[in-house]
This record gives sequence, C-alpha cells and structure tokens, in this order.
Amino acid sequence: MTDTSLIPFFSPKGVAIIGASLDPTKLGFGLSRNLVQSNYRGAIHFVNIKGGNLLGHPVHTSIMEVPEPVDLAVLLIPAEAIPQALQDCGRRGINAAIIASGGFRETGSEGAALESKCLEIAQKYRIRLLGPNCIGLIDTHLPLDTTFLSPPGPTPGDVAFISHSGAICAAVIDWARGQGFGLSRLVSLGNQVDINETDMLAQVAADPYTKVLTLYMEGVSNGRRFVEKAQEVTRSKPVIALKVGRFEGGKRAAASHTGALAGEESAYNAAFRRAGVIRAETSEELFEWARALAWCPLPKGRNVAVLTNSGGPGVTAADALESLGLRMASFQPSTQTALRALLPPAASADNPVDMLAAATPQQYANCLRILLADPGVDSVMVILPPPPMSTAGGTAKTMIPVIYTADKPVVVALMGERLIQEAVEHFRAARVPEYRFPEQAAAALAILTQRAEMLASGEKADESTKVQISQSQIDKVSSILDSITTVRKNNFLPTETVQALLDTYGIPTLPLALGKSPTEAADLAHQMGFPVALKLASNDITHKSDIGGVILHLQTPEEVQNGYNRIMRNAREAHPGAESNGVYIQHMLPEGQEVIIGTVQDSQFGSLLMFGSGGIEVEGLKDIAFSLAPLPKDEAEWMLNNTWAGKKLAGYRNIPPGDREAVVDVILRLAHLAADFPQLAEIEINPLLVFPIGQGVCALDVRAKLSNG
Amino acid sequence: MTDTSLIPFFSPKGVAIIGASLDPTKLGFGLSRNLVQSNYRGAIHFVNIKGGNLLGHPVHTSIMEVPEPVDLAVLLIPAEAIPQALQDCGRRGINAAIIASGGFRETGSEGAALESKCLEIAQKYRIRLLGPNCIGLIDTHLPLDTTFLSPPGPTPGDVAFISHSGAICAAVIDWARGQGFGLSRLVSLGNQVDINETDMLAQVAADPYTKVLTLYMEGVSNGRRFVEKAQEVTRSKPVIALKVGRFEGGKRAAASHTGALAGEESAYNAAFRRAGVIRAETSEELFEWARALAWCPLPKGRNVAVLTNSGGPGVTAADALESLGLRMASFQPSTQTALRALLPPAASADNPVDMLAAATPQQYANCLRILLADPGVDSVMVILPPPPMSTAGGTAKTMIPVIYTADKPVVVALMGERLIQEAVEHFRAARVPEYRFPEQAAAALAILTQRAEMLASGEKADESTKVQISQSQIDKVSSILDSITTVRKNNFLPTETVQALLDTYGIPTLPLALGKSPTEAADLAHQMGFPVALKLASNDITHKSDIGGVILHLQTPEEVQNGYNRIMRNAREAHPGAESNGVYIQHMLPEGQEVIIGTVQDSQFGSLLMFGSGGIEVEGLKDIAFSLAPLPKDEAEWMLNNTWAGKKLAGYRNIPPGDREAVVDVILRLAHLAADFPQLAEIEINPLLVFPIGQGVCALDVRAKLSNG
Repeated sequence: MTDTSLIPFFSPKGVAIIGASLDPTKLGFGLSRNLVQSNYRGAIHFVNIKGGNLLGHPVHTSIMEVPEPVDLAVLLIPAEAIPQALQDCGRRGINAAIIASGGFRETGSEGAALESKCLEIAQKYRIRLLGPNCIGLIDTHLPLDTTFLSPPGPTPGDVAFISHSGAICAAVIDWARGQGFGLSRLVSLGNQVDINETDMLAQVAADPYTKVLTLYMEGVSNGRRFVEKAQEVTRSKPVIALKVGRFEGGKRAAASHTGALAGEESAYNAAFRRAGVIRAETSEELFEWARALAWCPLPKGRNVAVLTNSGGPGVTAADALESLGLRMASFQPSTQTALRALLPPAASADNPVDMLAAATPQQYANCLRILLADPGVDSVMVILPPPPMSTAGGTAKTMIPVIYTADKPVVVALMGERLIQEAVEHFRAARVPEYRFPEQAAAALAILTQRAEMLASGEKADESTKVQISQSQIDKVSSILDSITTVRKNNFLPTETVQALLDTYGIPTLPLALGKSPTEAADLAHQMGFPVALKLASNDITHKSDIGGVILHLQTPEEVQNGYNRIMRNAREAHPGAESNGVYIQHMLPEGQEVIIGTVQDSQFGSLLMFGSGGIEVEGLKDIAFSLAPLPKDEAEWMLNNTWAGKKLAGYRNIPPGDREAVVDVILRLAHLAADFPQLAEIEINPLLVFPIGQGVCALDVRAKLSNG
Repeated sequence: MTDTSLIPFFSPKGVAIIGASLDPTKLGFGLSRNLVQSNYRGAIHFVNIKGGNLLGHPVHTSIMEVPEPVDLAVLLIPAEAIPQALQDCGRRGINAAIIASGGFRETGSEGAALESKCLEIAQKYRIRLLGPNCIGLIDTHLPLDTTFLSPPGPTPGDVAFISHSGAICAAVIDWARGQGFGLSRLVSLGNQVDINETDMLAQVAADPYTKVLTLYMEGVSNGRRFVEKAQEVTRSKPVIALKVGRFEGGKRAAASHTGALAGEESAYNAAFRRAGVIRAETSEELFEWARALAWCPLPKGRNVAVLTNSGGPGVTAADALESLGLRMASFQPSTQTALRALLPPAASADNPVDMLAAATPQQYANCLRILLADPGVDSVMVILPPPPMSTAGGTAKTMIPVIYTADKPVVVALMGERLIQEAVEHFRAARVPEYRFPEQAAAALAILTQRAEMLASGEKADESTKVQISQSQIDKVSSILDSITTVRKNNFLPTETVQALLDTYGIPTLPLALGKSPTEAADLAHQMGFPVALKLASNDITHKSDIGGVILHLQTPEEVQNGYNRIMRNAREAHPGAESNGVYIQHMLPEGQEVIIGTVQDSQFGSLLMFGSGGIEVEGLKDIAFSLAPLPKDEAEWMLNNTWAGKKLAGYRNIPPGDREAVVDVILRLAHLAADFPQLAEIEINPLLVFPIGQGVCALDVRAKLSNG
C-alpha cells in the first residue's frame, strides 16, 4: 500500500543538511539546530562550502565528502545552486531530498523552469523530492525534525498534519501546543514538483503512532487517484480535510443545468464522501474533531446523555445535538432510580441530567458511571462550568478514571477560562477531549458518530450493488460515437443519437419521429396516436421551451399542423439565423413525477452525476445532489434520501409514489455511460418522468454534448 | 424610555443584604464580601438575626433597624422566610429587591405558590423584584456587585450581559476574563416573577458604559413587547441574542401549510429581524461578535481588504468572507503602486495582499495604512501567524497606532497560541478584536456590516410604506365575522366567507358559484363561461385535491356533469361520513406563477405572515420566509428577495415576469387582516396566481380558520 521510495523521508539512516549555517540568525542554522535538538538517532551531516564545526558536528564542504550512512538530504541553499546539489546527491546515491529553499515556480516563469530542471535531475537519479518552497517534515516519534521553525516544535502525539501551506504548519504547531494535543507527523508539501498530498497520505497513515490524519488542502493533483488512495486510508484511520479556495473555482460554460450547477465544490463534496474523508469547514473544526477521533472510542449509535450541573447549558447542548442529527437518549427506569438515589429531589434524572449547582466531584463521577452503564446511551457529554462549591480540577480528577474505563465516548464542555485551567490540564493529560462550549462538544460527538456509521456502511457494502453493462452495449455506444462525422459548432449531438446511446445502456426513452412539414408531422402523429407533443428539431437552439419551441397535448391532425407552424415561427423570431430541421413528435405520456439526472466531466475528478428536482426551475430550486460516477447503489440511495425530489418518490399528498427502483437504475446506468465515455462532456435527462411503482420511467427530454476535440 | 422603578437596581443609595453571614463557607458571606470588595460607594447594611460584625460593618438583627439610606435589598435567606422579609422591606420603604434564594417555582407547585405570595406582597408595597433563584446583578462601573460568585468578578468593560441562566453568568464572567474583554452590567433574571428580560433591556442600554448588549434567552415573556422595546434599543446600541431551547418548541396542529411550517424558530427569527436583534447560533459567537461591535467603527460597505504574510490563510479568509456575503475589495492603481514600493517583487499587491513570510512589523503597519486609505476598502482583516523573523508582539505594537487612528474597522486573525500571547495582550489592551482563525475574523466583519446596513435601512424607512386599510373595511370584516353563528367542529370558515373577508381588504379572489346538483353546476358553468374548474364544497374535508376533489379544464356542460359526479364519488370513498354541499365552479384563469401567502397566530409573537413557493409541495420544498404581521413594505421585499418564489417573479427562462407589486400588496393586506383580527387563527392563499406585470394577481384557493373559543 505504501510507496517504498518514500521510506527514507520517515526513517532515514542518515540526514545531510546542505546549507547548514554557523550564523544563528540564518534559517540554515535553525534547520541544523532543530535536527540535532529533535534527538534524531541516525547520522547527522552538515554541508556548507565554508566548512567548520556546528553543534558538535563537522561541517563538510561538499555532499560528496559526507560519510555513510546518508539517505536523506535537506537542501536550503539559493535556488540557482539546487540543480547542481541535487546532481551531487544523485551521484552520492541519495534517493530522497527535501528542497526547503524558495525561488521556484512561486516566483514566476524563470523559477518554474528551474523547478522543472530539478525534477529532470531527480528523475534521472531516481531521487524523490519534497518541495521546493516547503517547511519540510517532522516525525515526533522517530524522532526527526527537518524544519527551520523556531522552537519549541510539536509535542509527540497522535494527530498527523499534511499541508499545502507552510505558514499554516507554523501556526498549527504553536496552536496544537497551546491546545494541549500532540502531533505525530507533519508534512509541508510546498510546490509539489514530485511528491503530492496523495503520495503522502498512505505513507503517513502507515505510521503506528498516527491515529487521525488532518489535511490542509488547496487542491488535488489527481482527483481520482486521491479518492482511491484516501478510500484505502479511511478504512483504517479517519481523515479530516480542510479544503480552501472554494470561491476561486472557475465557472463552467453552462451548456446544461447539470453543467451550470456542477461547481468545483460539488465535485469536492462528492469526492470526499466517496473517499470517506470528513470535511471540516473551519481550521478550528479540523483539530477539534481530530482530538475526538484520536482519543475516543466510537459510539454504537446516536443516543447521547448529557450530564450537567445547571439548566441553561443543558438546553444549549440538547439544541446543538439535535440540530446535528443526534438524539437525546431515553434512560432505562433503573438508570433514573439510580440517579435519583444520588441526587437531591429538585435535580432532574431525565436527560439532560441536571445535578444542580451544588453537584460534588463524586456526584459527577457516580452519575457518569450510571449513564455509561445504560444500554440506551451511546455517548455522554459532561458539562462542567466552574462549580460554586468545589473546583473544576477536582471534579475532572474524580471523573477521569470513569472515562478511562468506559467503552463509550465521553466529551466535556468545560465552560469558563481561568477557573477551569487545572481541569483543562487534567483532561488533556488523560486524553479526554474538552471544549469551551457545549456546541463544540456536540459537534465532536457528531463526528464520532459519522465515523462509526461510515465504517458500518463500508462493512455491509460488500454485496454486489453495481449495474451490469455488457461489452456489447459498450461496443455499440462506441460505434455510435465513432459514426458521428459532423461535429456541430456547439458540440451537441442530435436527439436521435442521444436516444440511441441511452437505449443501448438500458435507459427507457420515448420514441421520437421527425416531421419535416406540417402535413408530415400530422401524419406521423396520427400513426403514433393522439395526444402528442411537438418539439423543435434544431441543433442550434438548446433551451427549446424558452422560445416557444415545445407544444403539448395536441389532440388532432389540425392542431399538429398549426402547432408546427407556430413552433417554426417562434424559432425564426427568437434565433433568425438558426437551423431548424422540423419538429419532433412524441406520444404524450401519463403524468408522473419529474426528476433530472445529468452528468458532467469534472477536470479534477472526472465523471460526476447529478440528481434532483427536474423541470425548468432546477437552477432556482437547487434541490440537487452530486456523486462521482460510476457509483454504487448506496450512493444513489444517498442522493435520493438527501433531495426533496428523491424523498417525494415515496409519495406525498395526492402525488402517488413513484418507481424509485427504476430511478436508481437510471442513475446507475447514466453514471456508467458517462464514466465509460468521457468524451461525452455533458449528458442530461430533464425531465425523467417517473411513473407509479412497477410502471418504470421514461427519459422525456435528453441532450448530450461532446467534449471539445 | 426607561422605567424609573428600576433605577434603584443600578444606582442604589444604600444596599441591605438580608442573610449576610459571618461564616466564610456560606453564600451569605460571599455576597457580603463581593458587595464590600466591589468598592460600592453607597451605604452597605448587613442583616442577620444573629447580629455581630462583618467586614467592618455592624450586622443588624432586622431590616427595620437599618439606618438610612437604603433603597435596595438583597435577600439570601430560606425561601419560607422571604415573604415576611419582603413585607418588612415594604414597611421600611424599600422599593427594589433581589431574591437570590432558590426554593420557588423551580422546585414544584409549593414553591410556585410561595413565589406568587412574594409577588403579591411586592405589588402591595410597590417593590420591584429581581429573581427569585438568580445570581443577582453586577455593575462594574458604578461599581456594584450583588452576587455571591467566587472572585474575581468581571473586569470593567463595555459589553452588557442579561441572562435567563445563572450558571451561564458564572461561566461568562470567567470566560470574559480569560478572553480579555470586560463587562459593563450583568443581570441574572432567575424565575422572573416580576422583572423580565424586556424590562431590563432598556435599563441596561441606558448605561453610558455599555456599548453592546448580549442576551442569553430561553424564551420571552411577551413577544410583541420584547420586539417593541428591543427595536428602540437597537436603534442606538447593538443587541446580540443567543436563543436556546429551539428543539423544545411545541409543534402546532397543522391545519394549513403555513401552520405546519410556522415553528417557534420561524417566529423568533422574524421577531429578531424586526427588532434589529442579531442572532448568534453559539455561545462563542455571542461574545466574539460583541467584542467587534463594542470596539470597531462600522464599515461603509462590504469591500474587505486582507493583509497577510502567507498564502494559505489568505485563501481561507477570502473563502470565509465571500461565503458570508462580503466582497474582496478591488484596489485603486495608486494603492497597488504604493504596496509594490514597500514589498519584495514576489509579494502580491492584489487582494489578499501577501507580504510573504519575511514581512516586518513596519511593513505590516505601512501596508495597513495604505489599505485603509483606499476609498474602495471598507474594512481590513490582518492575518498574523507567528512571523518567522520577528515577533507577533512587536508587529501588534507597530500596527496598533494605525488601527487606532482609522475610521474603518480592522480585525486581526492572530494564528497560533503560545508564540502570539504578547500580541494577544497588546491587541486586547488596545481594544482591537483578535481571533485565532480567519473564519472567526470574517464573521466579525460580517456582523459589523450587518449592523451598519441595519442602521442605514432604518434611516431610509421613514417614508410611509404601509398599506391603507380604512375603518369601513375593518368594520365590514367585523360584521362578517360577527355574523358567523355556526362554528364547525374544525373551525374552518366557508369559502364564500373567506373570499368576502379578502375582497373587503382589497385582495382579488375568483368569483365562485356553488352547484348543488350536476345540472345546476353545468348551468352555472355555462353562465360563467368555459373552461371551468370544479372543487368539492365541504367544510369537513380540508385538503381537497388530495382526495380527487378538484378537476380542472372542463370545457362543456357534459364534462361538468360528469366531473360533479366523480368528485362526489371520490369524497364519499375517501371520507364516508363527511358532509358535502356540492361543488364550487370557477372560471379557469390564464397561466401565472403560483405563490403561497398565509398567516398564523403565534402564541408568543402574535400574527406571522408566510410567503413562498406555492402549490402542494410547500412543505417539501420549504422555500418560504416569515415576518411579523403587519409588516412594512421593506420586509415584504426582504421576503421576496430571500425566496426562490420571490426571485422568480422577476422572470426566469420562459416564465415571464410576474406582477411583483401586486404580490407585495397582497402580502401587506393579508398581514393587516391577520393582525386586525387575531381570532383568524390561520388564513392561507394557495396558490395566489401571479399574472404578468400590470395584470395583477388572483387568490385562487383560500382558507381560513377561527381560533378555538
């Protein structure tokens, strides 16, 4: 699972610092100092053309003079000198290098050229590169510190941090220290000329000391590879990502509703969901959640008990828990009896359990033990404002043994600041997640539950949930696409072609006849059977209903002839130069629910499938969900469960239940088609008409667009 | 504006503590100690039946013995003894009392009876009561501390806190001290037997030291009075409320879509919006926002400049700002030139301004000065991770004079923990809001902008924006309602009556004829002109389209006769016992957009008006907004601007623009009707058909329900 070429980064036998400096004001000194002070146990070598002696080690004037063992080089010399130094490393047999220096791609085209040259040399000598323009990496357990940051570095811990930003690394180390949690590994990726976030993921996850991985991401290098690797990692260890830059994502040219709605954020959300990566919205959440995941057992369900010594914070906690989809646990009668025996009569033995302001440390501990023993309780939030009659520190100390021995998660809302400092320190030392407010504690429990449910759904997803598409179906679509000779200026395929593609993949469409004159249209309608619908046949005009290009419910040949003329007139008025081939005639179908199913090709993550409320108001109602395509059945179910269009398929008021299974089937098939043929830049069925249960669906209006070139 | 009877609470000439204790382990000692240590400058009197001497003051054995001046009593004796003590206070001429003791309503019915007795005595002697079961109050500037909380109390500051929870008060005092901001006044309301949150609002706002009011609310005593008083206060000082207990709100019986959707939270949101109260979602936001509002000038617009020394946090900041509706400012060319002259070539002089990691304190200060001078910049966020080459403290000190002299708000994202402590202290001392993460700093700027925009909209709302309803219209509705003699079991009014009510208030409805047999229906349809719609006339069956009680587009007398029979059969099958009076016949209208407008009577806030996407999927789409009724025109505009139904009135794709003005008019009129006649428990127009601009609207389907009793 891990890439062996990356091993020297995390267990080097010897490290050489090229650019070590005797001047304490230089970064090259800081780097040398950190390596020595980190207590790294391998060989330490300093290289500087000036020579000398530094921190008890000789300074070699060239990497070529450095004695064995040395398998990792850290370069902190001017950018122009890096290619030569890399070449020396290669000749010296070093296969791993960290380029800490800046002055590369981030400075413009000259720097970019220099960066490419470095990569070329590295590839020639099979050197893996971290950076350039990065802070380096830290492993607190090995230990190893190849950064030049001011001490103190992070304390050893169980949260790993991988970052696209070096500045964030410095802030995180300092912040983690203040927040009382340690780091296991920290990797600053810099310009990623070689090693990127995906490469590091499995490598860092392989560390036995790392219990949770956190990512600060500004993008991905290869979307699908990231999803694949992250999926492997999240099966064993939780990954939380803060993805920034969401408002910078370029807008797509909107050829379809799906295309207009598929922003970069939809793609990232779909990718994180598929990969099992938890997405944090703020920097604070990233680490608040990481602490809970690193330190707590996972809950078996959503039922939370709240233990408090005052009413107000208990209500706040209940609000926060329920808004996050958790439930206030109902207690067994024996639990209530046991609580009442311990508490004064005015206390509440219901959830939230309010022990009243005079609650003693012993009451906190005993009530907590009782709550943890209730089989209807999956997790507990303890709320501890500065107690008026005792100390928060004493209360913490008394509760900690109970929390230690529990197999259910306990988080603490430790409210206040100065009066709770001793309690803060006790809880942190005992690895009990504590937060200043009930809302944060509730969010931590919600994340633990999300992780537990993700692992559970992964276990049962083994059954085959994929739609079967045969080779002959694939071949047929290939030949249809190959036979397209004339590519229109807007790349849209003729409706008949789109219908043929969908038919081939088992998606029901409505037979369609092309009438090239009023009388031909009327004849075709007569053969088809009334009532019929007419639609303009034009490859130049996309949103046909917008210009009066669609007429429904025509009952007679005369109405069809008049309708034909009206559509042609509307088209000419709206788009004088546009080509019109006549009108399509379709039999009018019975009523059904209308949904939209569409696909786009995302530049980062490949095929995406969208499902939601169909019709023309798609972009206004925004009742939609996205998944990566192809997708397993449970993701199709997720999309249905998370949109009103999907929920409504169960029936609502006088809308009869729709054929939900048939909708899921179309989702899976269309996703397959988009994934099999990425040259189909966009495909959209809007609406897909959904008939009552057992009566199937019909793709009423379809469109598809080829990618450019 | 303020209630003179509350003056003794905040400027007493003399305070008597009834229940002062010589025993340092008792709350009665803590209370005495706090009063003395608070440096309260008026007369201090201690009362305890045992007498003695306490903290240099004699202890009187009865309140009757206490010498003048004394105008505020704080009672901390057993609950049973309170009525007698209150009576003594009354006889002594004391008109203000704080009952700190518990043992009242919160303990059950006996306690509630005791509480009522206290109120009775207080009313007899004209004593205003704070509590019982409260922590008391603090004024840090007078100064005065009537709480028994462990020292230290809050430092003097400019944020007031009014709370329904005593425990939260203790936590807030401690937390504020740790977060480095002071409090002006703190009021714990307890059981609110007399004085409630609304009473205290104006009283606390009148304090010249208070710049922002924060509220921890578990409910309101009188919704409309709260809105009215809060509206007065927010004109001069910002009010931020944390309202908890949102998931406890009882569900209404859902007689209409509006009733089903109007939860307690919709009412609170509408009330806060009307009152200009900013609603915080978490305890943390409450005080993070309060600091910004207390310490910063308000921005003139939404354009924010971000100043940073690293890319990552700058991107995070831009994300957060844009997601909150703020804009990244575009700089004038002269600003960019000035920045470039100060910064290295690789730095970014665009927004976010990235000075690179080596940025010096002087560069921070100078760039900040340049940004503040740009007329296109309304506010600035400075991002300061621990700088590698200088100290955060030094940078803070250099920037503070620039921030001081600016008339634009500057907030700081001071990232890290231990390395930034000195900077934290500098900023706090200078009253510059600092946060650990860019997201929180962005939220603070958004709140400042919201406050500025609220004040600006208040200024221009002077023009008359109310709909005119004459006395004769009101009288006519009164007489219609008075003439209703038979109240049906479900309290629904006959459709003709509802139409008459709406017509009277100037809301267009569709003429409706009642046919009691198939032939009568056909005749009426013929007179009205085809096509027509039929609808079941029944007071027992509410959702008529659900049971096949509505048929549209009937073209001939025969179709009407068949339709009549079909509706009757459907009604009999669905509700065998239900009464049916025949069918209503309406002329079919041209197509239009469909919206819903409804009202309900909220038990806390009175009449509420709902606007949104109409049809039968109202509850599924939840595209709705609520306002208090009656409402000014700008609130109607707000509802339209914040729903898809409202936005769509401007036209969308092939949906032509609708008559927006006519919709606003109906909103104002229906709100007026609901407010004028609160006995109309629910009124609903669904759909209101909206024709193209200038062609008006028509209330197609209407219902109204009387309140019980």
